[in-house]
Amino acid sequence: MKLIVQKFGGTSVRSKETRKNAISHVQKAVQDGYKVVVVVSAMGRHGDPYATDTLLSLIDSESSISNREKDLLVSCGETISSVVFSSELNTASMNSVALTGSQAGFLTNGDFTNAKIEKVKTDRIIDELKTHDVVVVAGFQGKDENGETTTLGRGGSDTTAAALGAALKADFVDIFTDVEGIMTADPRIVESARPLSVVTYSEICNMAYQGAKVIHPRAVELAMQSEVPLRIRSTYKDDEGTLVTSSRTEERGQDIPDRLITGIAHLSGITQISVKTEQHIGKLHDEVFSSMAEAKISVDFINISPDGVTYTVPSSSADKAVQLLENLGYHPTTLSNCAKVSTVGAGMTGVPGVTSKIVGSLTAKGIEILQSADSHTTIWVLIKEKDLKEAVTALHDTFQLEQQG
Amino acid sequence: MKLIVQKFGGTSVRSKETRKNAISHVQKAVQDGYKVVVVVSAMGRHGDPYATDTLLSLIDSESSISNREKDLLVSCGETISSVVFSSELNTASMNSVALTGSQAGFLTNGDFTNAKIEKVKTDRIIDELKTHDVVVVAGFQGKDENGETTTLGRGGSDTTAAALGAALKADFVDIFTDVEGIMTADPRIVESARPLSVVTYSEICNMAYQGAKVIHPRAVELAMQSEVPLRIRSTYKDDEGTLVTSSRTEERGQDIPDRLITGIAHLSGITQISVKTEQHIGKLHDEVFSSMAEAKISVDFINISPDGVTYTVPSSSADKAVQLLENLGYHPTTLSNCAKVSTVGAGMTGVPGVTSKIVGSLTAKGIEILQSADSHTTIWVLIKEKDLKEAVTALHDTFQLEQQG
Repeated sequence: MKLIVQKFGGTSVRSKETRKNAISHVQKAVQDGYKVVVVVSAMGRHGDPYATDTLLSLIDSESSISNREKDLLVSCGETISSVVFSSELNTASMNSVALTGSQAGFLTNGDFTNAKIEKVKTDRIIDELKTHDVVVVAGFQGKDENGETTTLGRGGSDTTAAALGAALKADFVDIFTDVEGIMTADPRIVESARPLSVVTYSEICNMAYQGAKVIHPRAVELAMQSEVPLRIRSTYKDDEGTLVTSSRTEERGQDIPDRLITGIAHLSGITQISVKTEQHIGKLHDEVFSSMAEAKISVDFINISPDGVTYTVPSSSADKAVQLLENLGYHPTTLSNCAKVSTVGAGMTGVPGVTSKIVGSLTAKGIEILQSADSHTTIWVLIKEKDLKEAVTALHDTFQLEQQG
Repeated sequence: MKLIVQKFGGTSVRSKETRKNAISHVQKAVQDGYKVVVVVSAMGRHGDPYATDTLLSLIDSESSISNREKDLLVSCGETISSVVFSSELNTASMNSVALTGSQAGFLTNGDFTNAKIEKVKTDRIIDELKTHDVVVVAGFQGKDENGETTTLGRGGSDTTAAALGAALKADFVDIFTDVEGIMTADPRIVESARPLSVVTYSEICNMAYQGAKVIHPRAVELAMQSEVPLRIRSTYKDDEGTLVTSSRTEERGQDIPDRLITGIAHLSGITQISVKTEQHIGKLHDEVFSSMAEAKISVDFINISPDGVTYTVPSSSADKAVQLLENLGYHPTTLSNCAKVSTVGAGMTGVPGVTSKIVGSLTAKGIEILQSADSHTTIWVLIKEKDLKEAVTALHDTFQLEQQG
């Protein structure tokens, strides 16, 4: 059985008009001989009546509701969406049925608002696909062993789609968004940014973690584990978008160059913190990172030196971090308005000189590199936010990414 | 355990403002030492985003959705309502939890959109009441043996409340509405109409069937079967409203007169049809009533005579009924704009002269009685709609109902 999972997010299913675009993609797949499992998010964004945030806004305050009831409430958003979408597929002469996450077989643990999928029992979906062209599944939800409705934490409907793709061994998992695929850089920053036709799972993970935001990394991990090909596609175009797979070369043949660098991602709103001590350095490390962890402040760019430590936090957590450090008796110095620029490419593994090219490209423009770090597929630099546009553009030019695609 | 079931309809839970009134009733019961099971309808009426009709209006057409999916969709209305209401109880310092119909133990058959309650498993509610003051149950819904969400047909949330009252052996089932109780007559027609303090189950059934519309007869039947006292109360007043019980005299003591007549109900929009034949009269009866039944036209005031039959139908079905009769070769005559006036009173059983009082009262006003019928608690007359106000007022006066209450 040829099978595709197609996921449509909140903006794609928001109105009858936008759903027409979504439905045309489902119809195309059905006409091409696929059975289709559609995963939908709640309809729209805050302000739209059935969107997750709007449903939550019906409640007085966080404290007047348990997480169990929060899940019961917000799950209605995706359930409503699944029935509405299914009915419009039927109107468009497809044969469709709507299932809740629970009915679609999503068994989770009981960690309400942040539930983890424990199992996807596909019997019901497989059964429904015998008599239907399409099964529409309410994303972002499941049930725990007591039958209570849960919502998935990380990744929401993307995760539902990837998990279904893995469990059903789908030919593709299509994630429809309002962008045309994974771009070589943010097109709002770099005019010559191009959509990529193929990227690897690990590349997209690094791109997404660094702010590309088109797909949740958790969904990519799930797809990667069972090697289900993902496609990042635009709801509003017929293109096949960006294929995400384990190797860049094998899927779409020799028209894909064996490129060194795939793309440049960035994240702003970062504050750099430095703490020094003349006392016991081990005690400082212990106290600093314990206090950050307890306060659930995420840290990055950790640079340990003999007399102290430098690291970054999201600027939204900076005041709290400084307060904690002062409470411990330290006198931290901070540098706010920093940005992280990630040069991502599975092809850089084992290729010497990439860091030197990055550093050369930035210093030629007079851009100060505050810190750097690297893994085998990514090199990160911390710069000042004012240099962001120039830095990303310079790196995009240096690696000739306008010729990618 | 002292236990009350309190049901709030769509208009009572429509807005934060109206819910404040509802919540004050729950609070009063909690302060009086009761555990409270609240049953809520979906919030508001058509046009409000989470009302049943509005949810259904999201769908293209009846034919683009199965009854199973229709139930999945509309059940979200009551589920959302239950979580919102529960959260506001918590804000008001009560300790509340929300349950879906399924979680509250409503097992139904699989007749979607018109499901019949097969069992109410109260374990979960009883368990929750150990640690909560209030359990809020989403009305109008349950699940079938396959775990599919169903909605109840007749009576909706009223039925949920009555079934819970029966299963939990509640002290009272309070049905909150926007009227102050069961009235001796429609106050829009009879200025001196008064709320009744006590009526019997069979009286309210006759009142409700005849257009009183404050509680669904199915809910009354359920309460009657297990002798759970119902109270019809106003959301916006502190009064105890109308108590509905098996005997009028035992519940609220000797301040209740052993009255002959309880109230006057009415229903307009009725058409009288007469069919005559010179042929076989048995064939006429057979053909007339079979054709009405097949077309699902409800008939009333059936008056069989040697040469034909006279009966009434809702005026909305009159054209169809006439067409069917003409197709059978009959030549029916019709009288439209009729009204049915019901004089209801459990106390009339075995008391002679009630019919004569009714006839006397109406003929004194020059009101023509087109037909009449009676049971042991109700006498019905068919009159012309133009005489309705005068007839109801005359009967209300004759039986001195302005002194009831």
